[in-house]
This record gives sequence, C-alpha cells and structure tokens, in this order.
Amino acid sequence: MVLKGNAVFAQSGGPTAVINSSICGAIQEAAKHSQITGMYGSINGILGVLNENMIDLNKESKRTIELLKQTPSSLLGSSRQKLKEEDYGKILKVLEAHNIRYFFIAGGNDSMDTANKMFEISKKLNYEMMVMGLPKTVDNDLPVTDHCPGYGSVSRWLAQSVRDAGLDTEAIYTSDTIKVIETMGRNAGWITASTVLAKQKENDAPHIILLPEVPFNQDKFLAAVDKVYKKLGYVVITCCEGLKDEKGEYLTSSKRSIDTDKFGHKQLGGVGESLVSMIAEGLKIKARCDKPGTIQRVSGVMQSKLDVEEAYQSGAKAVEHAVNGKSGLMVTLIRESNKPYKCVTGLTELSNIANKERKIPAEFIAADGMGVTEKFIDYVLPLIGGPLQEYARLEKNFISKILK
Amino acid sequence: MVLKGNAVFAQSGGPTAVINSSICGAIQEAAKHSQITGMYGSINGILGVLNENMIDLNKESKRTIELLKQTPSSLLGSSRQKLKEEDYGKILKVLEAHNIRYFFIAGGNDSMDTANKMFEISKKLNYEMMVMGLPKTVDNDLPVTDHCPGYGSVSRWLAQSVRDAGLDTEAIYTSDTIKVIETMGRNAGWITASTVLAKQKENDAPHIILLPEVPFNQDKFLAAVDKVYKKLGYVVITCCEGLKDEKGEYLTSSKRSIDTDKFGHKQLGGVGESLVSMIAEGLKIKARCDKPGTIQRVSGVMQSKLDVEEAYQSGAKAVEHAVNGKSGLMVTLIRESNKPYKCVTGLTELSNIANKERKIPAEFIAADGMGVTEKFIDYVLPLIGGPLQEYARLEKNFISKILK
Repeated sequence: MVLKGNAVFAQSGGPTAVINSSICGAIQEAAKHSQITGMYGSINGILGVLNENMIDLNKESKRTIELLKQTPSSLLGSSRQKLKEEDYGKILKVLEAHNIRYFFIAGGNDSMDTANKMFEISKKLNYEMMVMGLPKTVDNDLPVTDHCPGYGSVSRWLAQSVRDAGLDTEAIYTSDTIKVIETMGRNAGWITASTVLAKQKENDAPHIILLPEVPFNQDKFLAAVDKVYKKLGYVVITCCEGLKDEKGEYLTSSKRSIDTDKFGHKQLGGVGESLVSMIAEGLKIKARCDKPGTIQRVSGVMQSKLDVEEAYQSGAKAVEHAVNGKSGLMVTLIRESNKPYKCVTGLTELSNIANKERKIPAEFIAADGMGVTEKFIDYVLPLIGGPLQEYARLEKNFISKILK
Repeated sequence: MVLKGNAVFAQSGGPTAVINSSICGAIQEAAKHSQITGMYGSINGILGVLNENMIDLNKESKRTIELLKQTPSSLLGSSRQKLKEEDYGKILKVLEAHNIRYFFIAGGNDSMDTANKMFEISKKLNYEMMVMGLPKTVDNDLPVTDHCPGYGSVSRWLAQSVRDAGLDTEAIYTSDTIKVIETMGRNAGWITASTVLAKQKENDAPHIILLPEVPFNQDKFLAAVDKVYKKLGYVVITCCEGLKDEKGEYLTSSKRSIDTDKFGHKQLGGVGESLVSMIAEGLKIKARCDKPGTIQRVSGVMQSKLDVEEAYQSGAKAVEHAVNGKSGLMVTLIRESNKPYKCVTGLTELSNIANKERKIPAEFIAADGMGVTEKFIDYVLPLIGGPLQEYARLEKNFISKILK
C-alpha cells in the first residue's frame, strides 16, 4: 500500500557546513515521488511542527534548492529543544491536521532521540507516518555509522587553519612562542584529532594533540610542551573543549547555570585559555590561544566535496527508503574500502543512535596519549575530500657566515 | 652611478596572508636587474642579518618562488625584535662583509622604524645601501598609504567567517542566542570594521560592531544588545581585541608581565569573553565567544586576489625604485578611483611611517558608535577582491496554520 501525503523536513542540533546539502538531497529526491504531495520545512527543528511554523518548500525556486548544497549552517533553523511528553501529542495533532506522512530530520544523537520518540508515539497512536533520520554532526560521535556528514568539512577547515596558524607560529616564534588552538567536539576527540592533517612534515604543527578520551595530566602535558619547545623553539597544541582531568572533571567548565543547555549539557570553553595560563605559570613561556568556535563548523568555503556528496546522498537515501515503507531508521555510512575510498549507505534503528556517544577508539590514539596513530590518519584523510591548497616551503640553503 | 651588490629580503612583524606575495614580487623583480648580484633571505626579520642567518634565495626553485604568492605567513620567518643601538653597528658590519647593497623589509610601523634606523646609520657611516620598505599589516594602521597589503585578505576572511557564524546563530538562536566574535586590530578598528561586509540584508550579522576608536560604555552596549535581541531574538557582535573604556584603559588586559612584547605592547585578548560575562550578568542571556586569533590573518584559502596582486606590485616597485637609486622610502598605495577601483603605487619617507598608528577616521564610524558608515563600506569593499561564495537564502512562505 502506498502512503500518500505531505513531507516535512527538519534540521536539528548544531549547524554544519553540509546539513543543507543533506536537506537538498532529500528535497530533490522527494520531488521525484508522487506519494509525496507537498514539501514543508519545519522552522527551528521540531519546534516548527510543534508551533505550526512550517514553510512551503515548493515555493522556493529550483535555484535556491540547488544552492543549498553549497550553503552552510541550517537554513531551516535549528533547535536543541528537549520536548516534554505532552508535546508529542500536540505534534501528532499538527502532523495529522496537515496530513504529514513523511518526517525527515537531520541531526545528531539528541535529535535521533526526538525522532525515535516521534516514531514510537505515531505507532502507538496508529498514525501512519514514515520517520527517517539523516545523520549529522561535526562531532562525529554517532555510533554505527562509519562517520557523520559535517565531520569531513570541519576536519578540512581545521586541517587548513591549523596548518596556517602553525606556519604563523613558525614565523613569529621569537616573540609568540606557543599557540594553543581549542576545537569543538565536547566529549569526543574526533574533531581535535583531525588537526593532525595540518602536518606535512614531522616538525609541523600540531605538535601535541589533546583528546578528551585521555585524562589530562598537567605534569605530563608541561613536560611534553617543554620537550617540543627545547627541540624547535616553538610549540603548537590543539585541544578539545571537553578535556577532563583524571577525576573525570571538565578542565574548565563554566560556573554560570545559564550556560547549561536544555539537555543538561554544560557549555564548554575556556580550556585553551586554561592551558595558556598553565604554560605561563609552569614554564614561564608566553602562549596565546586561538578559539575559532562556531566558525570552524559552518565554513562554506572549506566544505569537503566528499562531505557535500555524502550528505546529499544520505538525504536522498532517507527519502528513497521512506517512500518504500521504511521507518524508524537513520541512514548510515558504510566504508567498503579505504584505498580507493568507497562508501555506501546503510540503515540502523533510531534507537541505536538516540542519546549515544561514540568516542575515539584506543587504536586511533598515540601511545603517549598526546597524538593520534597512522590508522587514524588513514581513517580521516579521505573525508576531507582532496588535498589542501599547495604552499611553498623553502629549502633554506644558508650562506656561509663570514664574521664570528 | 650604478650600485652593484647583493640584496637582502626580510619579513617583520605579524604574518599575513600575502607578505610572501610581496617578497615574491620583490624577488622576481630583482632577478631582472644585473645590479643585484645575489639574493639573500634574512631569517626572522632583522635578526637574520644581525646573526648572519641568511639563506640563498637563488637556490630555491622558480616554482617555489612562484608559489610564495599563494602561501600565507612569513616563510622567511619574522621577528618583533627591538634592536639596541649597538646592534645597528653590528648589522652594518654584516652587510658590508656580504656586500649587501640593497635592503628590503616588509613590515608595519615598528618594522619601518627599524628600516629607518638602518637607513640613517648607513648614511652616517657612509655605507652605500638602498633601504626600502614594503608595506604590510593586517591592522591597516599605517599612515600615508590608502591601505596595507594583508588587510584585504583578513577582511575577506572575516567577511566570510562572520557571515557563516552569523548564519549559525540565526539557525540555533533558540539555544545559542548571542555570539561575540573577537577580532585582531589592537588600537585600530579597521579589521573589526570590515566585518560589516558579512551583511547582505539589514538584519544580517553583525548587528553591533565595537571599535577601539570609540570608548566603550557598558550601559550603552547592553542597551544596544537588548534592542537587537528584542527585535530579532538573537544578536551577533564583533569587537576589537583592543577595546578601551572611557578612561582609556583596555577593557581586558592581561596582568601577566610575560604578556608584554618587546616593544612594550601588551598582548591583548579576552575582550570577547568579558562581553560574554557582561551580557550574562546584565541581561541574563547566554552568549558565547568565537576568537579566531591568528587564524584570521594567515588564511591561504581566503586570500583576496586584489590583495595578492597589490602586495606583489608593492614588492616589485620597491626593487624597481631601489635599483634606480631610491632609498629611505616605503612604497604606498594610492587609490585613484573607487568605482571602478583603481590603485597605483607611490612612495613616502620611512620616517613618516615609523611608529605611527592610523586609526579609523570619524567619517567611517556610525553616529551611535556601534557600527560603520556607507562611506567605510565603499572604502573596504573593493579590497576583499570580489564577491564571496554564493549562498541560498530561503524566501520562507509560511503555510497557513490549521490548529489554534
């Protein structure tokens, strides 16, 4: 039996460089299927459905929809709203009133929890609707899927920017000696780990990579900084915002209650500045911190082409499966081979994703806990979608000194 | 009389996206002139000459020299070293020993002071040498010249990144409501002001631009934030690292003596986080801060094509003038017309630049002190070298609500 009705598309959680590419794939695929009669965009994630704030995507031009591919952030608006139990009933009423039979949501672990609840309640109330999840998160911390759309692009941005900032420190080390670059990632170090791709030669930045999977030890850290400093005269460190000490406490967490989000996550930040102070006090060396913050996750210019393509495909596949009667599932990415890189899509139950975090496995973390392995580089390299801009590197043939 | 001998090239002060382009222009021009017999690169600014650490640029491949154009940071290494009086005598000895008759230095106001002293001491000691300055600074705070190579690229980077980060806040405002983006610029607001180019429509980010030329007033600031917040539901603020209060004190300056550089400048930073706390306390609204730091000034990917070209030309012109017997001068940029943009090079005495700072004139600052004028936009727009990446913007035709 063919389920006929309107489709709604929602974006949820933190924006990425390619979450609009996912929605573009979904919209363009949906346009091919006569079961899908109207296409609505839910404004601000699930809140749009809850409050009947939905736009008619068929009234957007084809050109606008096509341009979504190269447009970062979440153009439908996002939310991190944790719904109350009674909200789901209200949502079902809205869906029914608008004859919405296809529900697509692009998001991370929290969003898949919302999607899963929507799936379960619609089943319970016998409202026939296909609910499909589109994977999305720069943090790359969803289980089951090989990687998440959004991650390749933030990795590309960081690989390039850490390379640039590393060249900057290499140039100016006689006055600015140590640089700490704080990345996103919360409790998972995937984003921070990707900064390894800035390196072309052994001595290139980053010299130390601090992942939240490894308990932070101040003495070991300062010893490692000192070692690089004595060898090169400068040090570039990348660290995750969510670093924890050996007691499992965040290295820096805000004390203001206003900084806890609606899922109870603390807003993190300030780890980089903490390390700067630690270095100044412990080693008496001046350091500075770059904290690109949200800029890293939504760069249109630094989209990974592969990431755009995979995001698009995951959106298209979600629709294809839904019109074939699939529901309660999220599209996954399955890497079939690495050299050459080949990836196909799969499916997993939303409940396998909801509220779960995948951290970096031990095999990807260097033995000293302050870097990553070759195996990780093999994993992440294809995801940034091709080489970075070519730079000159000088051979530096020194002329003979004449004076003493 | 033709002065024949070796040339030395040095880079000084903070790196930029195009200081290597300037050196590329100088090297490629020097290669055309038989008066210049050898070409040396001084490693780490003036320190390279002082310590006889110089490389043979003729031993670098042509391809490497060509690639300098698209390579950010200062590949010869930079320094912020303040020379002592006795150092100049030593430098002269090194120059003489290596028969260096042409001295080119790319840098800002501090570096032109160094260049000027080199020029004066060589005259005083009757050592015949042409000393020429190549303008360079992301801060755009050199007098005389219309603008400085490096500024167009940092402006392009910020225009794009603030647009991206603005779309991010626009998407996620139901949980992340206010964003502060801290830029470089020290005592001059040119960099911060350029963030206005992120705007395409009136309500786009940035909504408030805080320049160091305008004394900061907390009450006025919070009132302005509140006004935008009540209108849009979110606010994006860009601020300069060097904001000062009405007493002329830096809003945030580090207390650590280690953070003062060799010219006595305090290392600034933390203004963004101060504003975040101010907003949390004063308005009880959660804010976050992005502080891209050095990443903004050295992006190879976001080089302004115009900036690359002008940097290259300023390098080439410095050499051309030197071989024609000019010395003690810095190349300037003179804007002949704005629509269409047309710019030529000029010359000014090094002493006109040394240690001077040019701030944003009043005509470029909005009446309320929290933005810029159309006149400033006319000034800065051509410098970013062409339009930014095209993004989709949704028309957002809302569907009719059915439920109450």
